[in-house]
Amino acid sequence: MSAPAATDLLALDRAAQDLLFRAARTANTFTDEPVTDAQVAAIHDLIRYGPTAWNAQPLRVLLLRSAEARARLLPYVSRRNRPKTANAPLVAVLAADVDFHERLPELYPPQPQARAWLTDRAVRAEQARFSATLQIGYLVVGVRAAGLAAGPMAGFDPAGVTREFFPDGRHEALLLMIIGHPGLDAWQERLPRLSTAEVVQTL
Amino acid sequence: MSAPAATDLLALDRAAQDLLFRAARTANTFTDEPVTDAQVAAIHDLIRYGPTAWNAQPLRVLLLRSAEARARLLPYVSRRNRPKTANAPLVAVLAADVDFHERLPELYPPQPQARAWLTDRAVRAEQARFSATLQIGYLVVGVRAAGLAAGPMAGFDPAGVTREFFPDGRHEALLLMIIGHPGLDAWQERLPRLSTAEVVQTL
Repeated sequence: MSAPAATDLLALDRAAQDLLFRAARTANTFTDEPVTDAQVAAIHDLIRYGPTAWNAQPLRVLLLRSAEARARLLPYVSRRNRPKTANAPLVAVLAADVDFHERLPELYPPQPQARAWLTDRAVRAEQARFSATLQIGYLVVGVRAAGLAAGPMAGFDPAGVTREFFPDGRHEALLLMIIGHPGLDAWQERLPRLSTAEVVQTL
Repeated sequence: MSAPAATDLLALDRAAQDLLFRAARTANTFTDEPVTDAQVAAIHDLIRYGPTAWNAQPLRVLLLRSAEARARLLPYVSRRNRPKTANAPLVAVLAADVDFHERLPELYPPQPQARAWLTDRAVRAEQARFSATLQIGYLVVGVRAAGLAAGPMAGFDPAGVTREFFPDGRHEALLLMIIGHPGLDAWQERLPRLSTAEVVQTL
């Protein structure tokens, strides 16, 4: 199938397709322009409608705005990711709330018994990671919807960041994300993508 | 912050915000209108640009189009989800390719050594689940971008579905998704969402 034909099959207009996926890129450099709390709130206000299991919404976002907070993060970041983490306008720690079940009676009234199914912490942690990771997918889209570039980074020590920033023991750090307006030479060439034939099979 | 002000802070226009998040809902009933292979290809062609760790793109999608394939799935689906799974225009099994590392030399040329870091199957499985789950987040958005409703379903036996549909031992089923045009009484009332103040904190 040719690209224009595929594009025409979508209800989302081409400019939005480009903004969110086709022209969007993971940025490695940023301008000095700040990312405001109002922008973060607008992004969250959009993506919070994305579906999660039991509507649990376990994603938690910790913004490291102070120089002190960012300095606490850097030792846990891979050497390769450290300079861009030090210089990005905004750094967020994306975490899962393993005790999300406490809110289920309010968030998922159709199954009041759901909370009682989740007394096992290991089961909850797996569920929390799954739904929070889905929400990180929505967040990547939401950051781009705000006209910003997202730089998701897995190159860090999640256990160390969890200990450092979530001493309550109820959260698990999943991913770091740097956010801002793309700067000079913000990205390398687009890496190859798998074709539909390689990803989708039919029975 | 009031909703209109937040909306204005986004580069994505309001119609697209509604299509993808604000008006989009998880559907429980569908019309008879089919979901074509061309629509699926258009959705994949959009979301394949979403970022994954090492650009590994481990999500694999198995469309169950034949009556026989759907009949093989139903025993693994929770009683509550079985009727809608039996009746949806399209049912997809979303899985992670645990042996994604085989493609890394081609998909992630900047770090040719990445493949060698991933000899441990358990480490790979965790990475595969994480990036494939991010991609499921993009897929929910992509299905909606095609003007369709997605019904992600965690209520099934993942180990059973993995054995039944992926006997090769290199894939893990993560989620089922029913897809189509919403039908009569397709959804219940919108469930509550957490506020930004409950999700985002700043240090």
